[in-house]
Amino acid sequence: MSVIERLTGEFARLPGVGPKTALRLVHHLMKGSKDDTRRLARSLVDLAERVRLCEVCGNFSEHELCEVCSNPRRDGSILCVVEEAYEVGAIERTGQYRGLFHVLGGRLSPLDGIGPDELNLIPLLERIRESDGQVQEIIIATNASVEGEATAVYLDHEIRPLGPRVTRLARGIPVGSDLEYVDGSTIAQALAGRREMSI
Amino acid sequence: MSVIERLTGEFARLPGVGPKTALRLVHHLMKGSKDDTRRLARSLVDLAERVRLCEVCGNFSEHELCEVCSNPRRDGSILCVVEEAYEVGAIERTGQYRGLFHVLGGRLSPLDGIGPDELNLIPLLERIRESDGQVQEIIIATNASVEGEATAVYLDHEIRPLGPRVTRLARGIPVGSDLEYVDGSTIAQALAGRREMSI
Repeated sequence: MSVIERLTGEFARLPGVGPKTALRLVHHLMKGSKDDTRRLARSLVDLAERVRLCEVCGNFSEHELCEVCSNPRRDGSILCVVEEAYEVGAIERTGQYRGLFHVLGGRLSPLDGIGPDELNLIPLLERIRESDGQVQEIIIATNASVEGEATAVYLDHEIRPLGPRVTRLARGIPVGSDLEYVDGSTIAQALAGRREMSI
Repeated sequence: MSVIERLTGEFARLPGVGPKTALRLVHHLMKGSKDDTRRLARSLVDLAERVRLCEVCGNFSEHELCEVCSNPRRDGSILCVVEEAYEVGAIERTGQYRGLFHVLGGRLSPLDGIGPDELNLIPLLERIRESDGQVQEIIIATNASVEGEATAVYLDHEIRPLGPRVTRLARGIPVGSDLEYVDGSTIAQALAGRREMSI
C-alpha cells in the first residue's frame, strides 16, 4: 500500500471525512509545503503524548490538573457536570461561568451497557463529600437527549442527599442538539436561567 | 497555546475544515486510541519525507518513476495529459486506460501569471520529440473550465506539429444524470458529438 493510500485511509477514518474528502486533504498537503505537513504530524504526536485527563475533573489537560482546576480564581462552590471533556470548552467560551467542572465521560445508557460504574460518577460524589460543604451547587449540563435527561435525573437523585443545590441548564438549549454545536449566547442564557431541579 | 488549540488550528487550515470541524476531529482523536493518532502522524511524516513527483510524468511517486511509468505493460504510444497529479487516480480507477500520463501541474491562467513556463509543459513536448514517433496519441484531459479549454487549445497547437494525433475527452451527458438537470452548453456539446447508435 502506497503512502498516499495509507494516509488517505487514515484520514477517511475521521468522522465526517469520506474517501474523496480524504484524498482531497492528502492532495492539499502534497501541494503545500512539507513543513506544514510535518507541523500537523508534530501536533498529532503532541496530542498523543502530552494531553491526558485532569485528575480532579476529567477535563483534557497537559498537566495533573487542568487549566480550570488549577486556577485559584475559579469559584469552587459550583460544579458544572458535563458529559464529555470537549463540552467544557463550549461553556468556557461563553465567558459567563466562573465555577469548576466535572466530566462524566459519557452518559447513562443501559442499552449500550453504560451504567454509573462506567462513568466518572463515583469520584463526583466523593468530590462533593470530601469538600465538607464547600460545594454548594451542582449545575447539571448533560445533553438534551433521552440518555442525557436520564443521567440528569440519576445525578439529582444521588447528589441531593449530599447537601448541594442541584440545578440544570435552562431550557433554551434546542432539544435534540449537542452542546458542542450550540452558540455561545444560547449557552450563556441557559446558564443564567438555570432552575432548581424538582420532579 | 495549548496542544489542543494548536492541533485544532492545524486542522482548520485544511480545505473544507472549519474551526468546529477541526475541534470535532481533535476530540475524536482524543477519545480514540493514542496509537491511531500516532499512526496518522506517522503517515503524514511519510508523506512529507517519501512522496515526490515522478521524474518522467509528474505524477505522485515514492521512487524516481511512478507506478504507471515503471510498469512495462503500459502502452507507451498514448499519453493522457491531466492538470493535477490527483486526476491520474480518477482515470486509473476506471480501469479502462492502459497508456501513460503526463501531469501539467496546473492550467494556463494568464491572469494568475501562469503561462506555459510555469507548467510541466516543455518537458511534455521534449518527451514526445524524444520518443522518435513512439508516442502516437495525446489525449488531452484538462478540466472543462475556461482555463482548461484554453490549455487544451494551446497544447493542441504545440503538439500537432510534432506528429501525434491529439484527442480530448468527450464532452457529453454524465452517466446517470437526468437531461432535465444538465446545463445547456453540455447538452449542446453532447448533440454536436452524438454517435451512431450500435449495440
